Amino acid sequence: MAAALALAERGRGRTFPNPNVGCVIVKAGRVIGRGWTQAGGRPHAEAMALDAAGASAAGADLYATLEPCAHESPRGPACADLIVAARPARVIVAYPDPDPRTDGRGIACLRAAGIEVIEGVARAEAARSMAGFLTRRRLGRPHVTLKLALSLDGAAALGDGRSQWITGPEARAHTHLERSRHEAILVGRGTLEADAPRLDVRLPGLEDRSPTRVLLSATPQAGWLTIASPEAIASLPCDHLFVEGGARTAAAFLAADLVDRLLLYRAPILVGGGRTLPDFGIADLTQAHGRWRLEDARALGSDRLEVYARS
Amino acid sequence: MAAALALAERGRGRTFPNPNVGCVIVKAGRVIGRGWTQAGGRPHAEAMALDAAGASAAGADLYATLEPCAHESPRGPACADLIVAARPARVIVAYPDPDPRTDGRGIACLRAAGIEVIEGVARAEAARSMAGFLTRRRLGRPHVTLKLALSLDGAAALGDGRSQWITGPEARAHTHLERSRHEAILVGRGTLEADAPRLDVRLPGLEDRSPTRVLLSATPQAGWLTIASPEAIASLPCDHLFVEGGARTAAAFLAADLVDRLLLYRAPILVGGGRTLPDFGIADLTQAHGRWRLEDARALGSDRLEVYARS
Ligand SMILES: NC(=O)c1ccc[n+]([C@@H]2O[C@H](COP(=O)([O-])OP(=O)(O)OC[C@H]3O[C@@H](n4cnc5c(N)ncnc54)[C@H](OP(=O)(O)O)[C@@H]3O)[C@@H](O)[C@H]2O)c1
Ligand SMILES: NC(=O)c1ccc[n+]([C@@H]2O[C@H](COP(=O)([O-])OP(=O)(O)OC[C@H]3O[C@@H](n4cnc5c(N)ncnc54)[C@H](OP(=O)(O)O)[C@@H]3O)[C@@H](O)[C@H]2O)c1
Repeated sequence: MAAALALAERGRGRTFPNPNVGCVIVKAGRVIGRGWTQAGGRPHAEAMALDAAGASAAGADLYATLEPCAHESPRGPACADLIVAARPARVIVAYPDPDPRTDGRGIACLRAAGIEVIEGVARAEAARSMAGFLTRRRLGRPHVTLKLALSLDGAAALGDGRSQWITGPEARAHTHLERSRHEAILVGRGTLEADAPRLDVRLPGLEDRSPTRVLLSATPQAGWLTIASPEAIASLPCDHLFVEGGARTAAAFLAADLVDRLLLYRAPILVGGGRTLPDFGIADLTQAHGRWRLEDARALGSDRLEVYARS
Repeated sequence: MAAALALAERGRGRTFPNPNVGCVIVKAGRVIGRGWTQAGGRPHAEAMALDAAGASAAGADLYATLEPCAHESPRGPACADLIVAARPARVIVAYPDPDPRTDGRGIACLRAAGIEVIEGVARAEAARSMAGFLTRRRLGRPHVTLKLALSLDGAAALGDGRSQWITGPEARAHTHLERSRHEAILVGRGTLEADAPRLDVRLPGLEDRSPTRVLLSATPQAGWLTIASPEAIASLPCDHLFVEGGARTAAAFLAADLVDRLLLYRAPILVGGGRTLPDFGIADLTQAHGRWRLEDARALGSDRLEVYARS
């Protein structure tokens, strides 16, 4: 399942409105098929993996990070039907499909055909892997990552707005990688005017991954999808939104409780009098505690990345 | 030498105006004497260790973090003479004594008596261990540690000044331990008025270690040593000064380039609109880089401690 989850990551930020699923088929200890949801959502991961395995899928173990779909669509057959036809011995599923058109019917269909199904393996990891799709299902909006590149004393820029550079090249390259995992990326008008950011993915081999550019501003801007308030993200054509700043935009998203994941790049510098996060409604320090859970941390050059999840 | 350096730590913050030295005597693989500079500077570490070893010091190895003193004083005999009398086979020394009354004469005196001397073992570690004494020698002022307890976004307090609590109990206990390693502790008038801090060491067994309280203010305060500017620390009766805040005081010390060590306690919270470090003269981000070198980091409950040294 770990291999299937790793394949699912390849689709993250590219499969909207479909979930990014991963699939691995194993027979006699050898991987005979691998698949992940392709750009735009089709083919599905299972279809791709079955295609690779061909006739040898019969009697094999098929691992899928999401319950196979049970509904045919004009864009292709139901995966449950494809799997039944391929006759694997067992299907191992991490997460049930919340789509009302499937919702357990994928698994029921496999079992009815005499295929053994094991459910719930690495369920929490699969939920994290499909956080965009699940957030859209549950809350009707994309999953939001807020990026902050800060000095030790919390400055996102000098007092006069200059922010080149707080962090070093390794941290900036990592930001480009994160961009490639989101369908859309948002900045505030202040950042557009200060930095005229390109917001593209400048990493070899990932240039085609550059996400849709979204602006937070009361005034529409040519070349940008413009929204006037954080709440309007519900209407964006994406399941993964990357909010890149600046400080006022970050505060607006925090005030609206619309941040699911925090990417904090911290440089080992003190700035003093810099632009820091403005008030977003914390009235008491007890209110500030318990909101963020450290999920990952690593060194990036002389900077440190910390990833926090809403707790 | 590692054991001698660990013993030296016991004296840190208590031996002014003497250095905090550690000494270990080893014979046939067994430790037969241990010593460290006692409160107020006497007895010296070597005298204490030789006292413990007694006659068995003859033929042993003696490790000292600092060159044994060669000058007699009304408060006791020169350690070099004591060592010559005890007749160890070898003396291993980490750091030469910069005191002009010794300055190599301690080692020369041992060699003249036919004792083998090895110099410079763990010299850098010994310099760190005696940073207070060496800073006073070189720069005529105490070694300064600046403590900052901050949120992820750099807030030392809420916008209205409330700062109880940014960090958790483990971090606060660690601050008490750090207090015990300094002869003096300084806050600004703003912190005195906001928090009326006791600045004592509330740790079992270390209650007697509470440092001298120093106030940064233009107006003298009863019960406090008061100084009107950071530069005036030169006159304080200490080699280790702990600057505990608040934000304006921190900026004043940074502006005067009087911070040697930074203790950063970081809580996993976002505050927004908090009191952050004011401008201390960084005009350009390139100027901010390369000033701090991460020396140590650890988790303290849900907080994180990072120790930076001036680089
Ligand atoms: N270190 C980092 O991670 C990082 C990242 C990005 C930027 N920066 C720096 O941050 C600075 C810009 O930040 P900033 O805080 O001045 O501006 P900003 O957050 O980029 O943009 C603020 C603008 O967003 C618009 N907006 C629309 N709805 C809003 C709402 N509900 N709340 C708040 N804003 C809303 C407003 O524009 P309208 O008036 O047009 O409505 C407002 O003026 C630049 O110096 C940039 O270099 C740093
Ligand atoms: N999180 C933490 O680590 C931490 C630690 C301590 C305090 N705090 C919080 O910080 C807040 C107080 O900080 P603060 O920044 O308002 O005040 P502060 O730094 O404690 O004190 C500032 C005062 O220091 C005196 N001063 C003398 N010479 C100075 C100089 N060269 N530069 C600057 N000040 C000089 C001035 O008092 P005179 O007018 O009397 O000359 C000035 O008003 C409180 O809310 C406290 O709870 C947080």
